[in-house]
Amino acid sequence: MPGLFLDLYELTMAYSYFRQGMDQEATFAYFVRSPVPHRRFLLFAGLDTFLEALPQFRFAEEDLDYLQGLGLFHRSFLDYLASFRFSGEVWAMDEGEIAFPNEPLLTVTAPRIQAQLIETLLLNVLNYETLVASKAARILVAAGPEAVVVDFSPRRDHGVEAALRAARASFLAGFHGTSNVLAGKLYGIPVVGTMAHSYVLSFPDELSAFRTFVEDHPHPVLLIDTYDTIQGARNAVRAAKEAKETGKTVVGVRLDSGDLAVLSREVRRILDEAGLPEIRVFVSGDLDEYRILEFRRRGGVAWGYGVGTRLGVSWDVPALGGVYKLVEDEKGPRMKKSPGKLTLPGKCQVWREGFADLVTLDEEKGPGRPLLKKVFVRGERLVSKLELARRREEVRQSLFGLPPELADLSPCEVPDYPVRLSSKLQALVEVAK
Amino acid sequence: MPGLFLDLYELTMAYSYFRQGMDQEATFAYFVRSPVPHRRFLLFAGLDTFLEALPQFRFAEEDLDYLQGLGLFHRSFLDYLASFRFSGEVWAMDEGEIAFPNEPLLTVTAPRIQAQLIETLLLNVLNYETLVASKAARILVAAGPEAVVVDFSPRRDHGVEAALRAARASFLAGFHGTSNVLAGKLYGIPVVGTMAHSYVLSFPDELSAFRTFVEDHPHPVLLIDTYDTIQGARNAVRAAKEAKETGKTVVGVRLDSGDLAVLSREVRRILDEAGLPEIRVFVSGDLDEYRILEFRRRGGVAWGYGVGTRLGVSWDVPALGGVYKLVEDEKGPRMKKSPGKLTLPGKCQVWREGFADLVTLDEEKGPGRPLLKKVFVRGERLVSKLELARRREEVRQSLFGLPPELADLSPCEVPDYPVRLSSKLQALVEVAK
Repeated sequence: MPGLFLDLYELTMAYSYFRQGMDQEATFAYFVRSPVPHRRFLLFAGLDTFLEALPQFRFAEEDLDYLQGLGLFHRSFLDYLASFRFSGEVWAMDEGEIAFPNEPLLTVTAPRIQAQLIETLLLNVLNYETLVASKAARILVAAGPEAVVVDFSPRRDHGVEAALRAARASFLAGFHGTSNVLAGKLYGIPVVGTMAHSYVLSFPDELSAFRTFVEDHPHPVLLIDTYDTIQGARNAVRAAKEAKETGKTVVGVRLDSGDLAVLSREVRRILDEAGLPEIRVFVSGDLDEYRILEFRRRGGVAWGYGVGTRLGVSWDVPALGGVYKLVEDEKGPRMKKSPGKLTLPGKCQVWREGFADLVTLDEEKGPGRPLLKKVFVRGERLVSKLELARRREEVRQSLFGLPPELADLSPCEVPDYPVRLSSKLQALVEVAK
Repeated sequence: MPGLFLDLYELTMAYSYFRQGMDQEATFAYFVRSPVPHRRFLLFAGLDTFLEALPQFRFAEEDLDYLQGLGLFHRSFLDYLASFRFSGEVWAMDEGEIAFPNEPLLTVTAPRIQAQLIETLLLNVLNYETLVASKAARILVAAGPEAVVVDFSPRRDHGVEAALRAARASFLAGFHGTSNVLAGKLYGIPVVGTMAHSYVLSFPDELSAFRTFVEDHPHPVLLIDTYDTIQGARNAVRAAKEAKETGKTVVGVRLDSGDLAVLSREVRRILDEAGLPEIRVFVSGDLDEYRILEFRRRGGVAWGYGVGTRLGVSWDVPALGGVYKLVEDEKGPRMKKSPGKLTLPGKCQVWREGFADLVTLDEEKGPGRPLLKKVFVRGERLVSKLELARRREEVRQSLFGLPPELADLSPCEVPDYPVRLSSKLQALVEVAK
């Protein structure tokens, strides 16, 4: 039971609300407050993970014993926690929706204590999956619709759970597979992978390693940079030709170091000249959208990309500043006014026409389609578990159809977002200021 | 069972070794290959997590069913996996040891297939905890030995597991507590936290919020920047004076936005002039070692720091490039030679005298103390579970006793590390080149 996964202040605040009888309905909104450097759009993700965790947000007996030991809470509050079940309402964008800072991606309406206690879990889940999905989306845009892009991140992700969610979020964004076998099993993502340098080093020479690997595998991809990439390509040619004689096929070669743009061209030429145009060239090694763009600009040739470290930790922006703020309670719209930390007051809806978003108060109607949908009510989800593979196709379509100003991947500290407020909402913001 | 948490290539390589009968003993070393930007030292962490996971690295029946469905492996190999148990030997530095790139932090000696299959898990665990412990160590050095520093990272960490391990690693490094209640329960770390802006917003005005919070809590810390920090400090003074009359105590105030250096001084002055020197000033808000140094340089006054986002994702270096490489097998020392990716050949030991490290071959003796100790053999750990609180004291001592060249926190793309190779090892590297 994940109930104890919260910042202590959720409990100290909730305790005070409990003692004061302040448990009327309140609405909190999840949104990214400030511009995210280099991100002209976000890809919303993590909703399924969150909706699965929400009914399990409970407090076990041993959790309550631990809390009692802290000496901060009266027994009556612990009894309240013992029977805690989230009974509120959640509205959210679809997973895989293009989204922007300064608009609500999800709202929670529930008795104040409930809405408060789930904050840490909600932020932890949505911030990370949205972060990685957004990074994956950029990497796909850089690689282009023809390229195969796969997740190689498990060894550098921040834990096993992070690795699972990175595989899921990148697949949702449109990746083709992952090296993460557990993610393959849990989410039905195609798994990929062939050999490491240690395999090549385990044989007397590279050619022996290649020959053996071809013998042992139905779809071998040979890693050719353990000693010297060009010689590696020649050894791969030899192994591939021998394989053909026995009815076997070498599927591809992988380059993981050196000047990938130059080497990939050279390797492609060696393969083509050897009459092996069907052998695919994969590249990997600290890739991200910037390096893939540079690789392509310099004439690099790749059928596919393996992307690891820089995907799973979203290297250039390693955390998403998503926040969860009280926007309305029984006394009406609420708004925080600290310098540089303005929030939108009131329960809102987001309307999208093309890629221009209008944030309105809940009661208003805007142009285009409303993005926030009711997904959870009275302890149960209204939407079924996401069909990841189907949704992935839709997300790829929207990504590769982005207008140029959004698809622009060049660095930019303060991107401009196509998000406007309705005049009613704007007026409320002005009053609250 | 975490057996399926691996990159697919671990299995495809292992399958080939299995078919070829290549399962003699081999040694792999875990080390950070390249200089880590801005990190003049690392703090090794994650060993306990790894040693706990190792005996559980098994394959369940449903895992084997999944693998069978991939169509890559013969039944005999799946039978091998069904009875898989790691039976090898692990040598490692103590958790919390100061460590450097280019020296082995841990070595594994086991039948080749076993050593290979645990790679992804090993890297995932050690890379992240070492990353966060190293970041936490820098933050502590910036804050100084007198300051209280706590982990506020759960909402921005990459998952619930990452948040738990960030709390653990930062406490190991010397932090004083965490906001993460689950980490508090699991690891015995003191938990901290008081109120968020949403609490203040839930009352008609700030003073009412403060009064209520003081009434409801034994050790209240008041968040004073929801509307205006200076006015917030005055309201805190009023609430604290009223509290005194009823025998209650306000412990501190927290600032989370604005110019923290200027505001903290001003708030300190207001508290002191009001005759409340005992009220502590806490600061938080996107802090890290650079910002804490700048805060102190500009005369900021803080009793304690809450550090979140930039700690848990190690903001300036969000992944550690730790690798796990074959260094020796039945044919002798092995070494990868790709450009820029040299590894040390052979099973090694690290000897430390002061903070100068000498890496030697296993059979050599160096000066000072050997850092790698045998911690796991034949399926069982030789060292008991780490006493976190005790070890934390030792780590703090070593951190605050670092020589100036290591304690230097200024940015540096390619730090210089005090690591040398013995002449025997150097000769082996030259031969292998």
